[in-house]
Amino acid sequence: MELKMTIAEITVFLEKVFPQIDKDFEVISLAVDEVVVRMRVQDRHLRPGGTVSGPSMFALADVSYYVATLALIGPEALTVTTNCSIDFMRKPAAHRDMICKARVLKLGRTLSVGDVMLYSEGIEEPVAHANLTYSIPPNR
Amino acid sequence: MELKMTIAEITVFLEKVFPQIDKDFEVISLAVDEVVVRMRVQDRHLRPGGTVSGPSMFALADVSYYVATLALIGPEALTVTTNCSIDFMRKPAAHRDMICKARVLKLGRTLSVGDVMLYSEGIEEPVAHANLTYSIPPNR
Amino acid sequence: MELKMTIAEITVFLEKVFPQIDKDFEVISLAVDEVVVRMRVQDRHLRPGGTVSGPSMFALADVSYYVATLALIGPEALTVTTNCSIDFMRKPAAHRDMICKARVLKLGRTLSVGDVMLYSEGIEEPVAHANLTYSIPPNR
Amino acid sequence: MELKMTIAEITVFLEKVFPQIDKDFEVISLAVDEVVVRMRVQDRHLRPGGTVSGPSMFALADVSYYVATLALIGPEALTVTTNCSIDFMRKPAAHRDMICKARVLKLGRTLSVGDVMLYSEGIEEPVAHANLTYSIPPNR
Repeated sequence: MELKMTIAEITVFLEKVFPQIDKDFEVISLAVDEVVVRMRVQDRHLRPGGTVSGPSMFALADVSYYVATLALIGPEALTVTTNCSIDFMRKPAAHRDMICKARVLKLGRTLSVGDVMLYSEGIEEPVAHANLTYSIPPNR
Repeated sequence: MELKMTIAEITVFLEKVFPQIDKDFEVISLAVDEVVVRMRVQDRHLRPGGTVSGPSMFALADVSYYVATLALIGPEALTVTTNCSIDFMRKPAAHRDMICKARVLKLGRTLSVGDVMLYSEGIEEPVAHANLTYSIPPNR
Repeated sequence: MELKMTIAEITVFLEKVFPQIDKDFEVISLAVDEVVVRMRVQDRHLRPGGTVSGPSMFALADVSYYVATLALIGPEALTVTTNCSIDFMRKPAAHRDMICKARVLKLGRTLSVGDVMLYSEGIEEPVAHANLTYSIPPNR
Repeated sequence: MELKMTIAEITVFLEKVFPQIDKDFEVISLAVDEVVVRMRVQDRHLRPGGTVSGPSMFALADVSYYVATLALIGPEALTVTTNCSIDFMRKPAAHRDMICKARVLKLGRTLSVGDVMLYSEGIEEPVAHANLTYSIPPNR
């Protein structure tokens, strides 16, 4: 497997398909075996107490795995999440960005299967872990 | 099992603990075996094309199961999601509210386990299905 | 949707593709919206104390959802499990058969998505609940 | 965190609590951040074609994560699986043992959360991946 998109190309692509949220996410690094994405935490991502909400963590997991898959298959906007199983393990640190590391474990003809690990930036122990499956459009 | 909160009590409680999002959700009905919640779909919940985003559906699943659990244990703000496995099965209909039906399958001393089904309002076939586990604070 | 196989046809099919295990399972009823399967609990399914093991419950969930899918698509032996998320909620009753109720929530062109509920026979409260996804061979 | 059991101690413990299956499994290595377990594949683990069945892979995932948790908390037989979400990604190689690598991501007071990766021995690409949660008895 090899990369079919650069960070710059994916960033432009996300702006186009997700104009409402692309400012929240920054692709930090891109490799065949690991993609790293930062979520720039905004007030609307927070719960009382200043920690990141579950749906915001889900969004980070989902976008990161989308990026990891696109990096390997090229810009296929119709690639969609079919399953996500997420374990919330620790409370995120207050008022810190979150970092997500995503890896593709199996890239098939119609499915991309892998997982992601979420961290509060600068803290070693993971906050959440998720397995994701994306469906890839058949006629590419 | 019996209900420990009314719709009015839960609505007030959600306003207090989730001031940023409580306007999005409306508890429609409450019973021991099923809770129904509407998400009033707003522009910020949408993807291009007018369909509800995955993270917004996750938020609806999560809030609905939270309500279903609180209805049985009373107002325990510290009750937190530990796991959610969600299957996205169909594209939501554009520009429609979403309806979520939640049921608690096992209410233990420290865990609440159950599932939710998500629908575009007025359409019979479900859009998504999720299993959730919540951790209940031990010293209640 | 309509049924494409009868109980007798599925029973013969299971004998052919799963000769090692087919004696353990009995398809009790078959309908478009629900399939019911019994696991005839044997010593090898048990843990000390006489309760059914987790892998045996997984096997029941898996076979039952396979039957529910085949009933709708016909005999496709290559249909394979791609994901199963299972919640174990209660200890099964000792020395009782188990009953599994399976329903298909979305039958797509390449994926079958649904869930199953497992019971100790004669007891109302469910023992386990699982979501399953099966991949369907494309060239049928 | 540090190890509370040796390979020898865990092996003896498994013989005692799982007399029916302990011969199938061999703990190969034990460390705080990774436990490796071999499943000695027997005829009863196979499907026609000689590949390992889904329930047998589930059993390997489950036992391996049990070992990983016990290694950190000591011999607590009542530790039970509450959730497992497993992705089957590739067909196992025929007539090969399977290897499972397990890691604990969060060891809490009442829950152990982590994941496992399953391989056909000698083959680099993983066959299956699972997230597991175990409930730990409170009064230890």
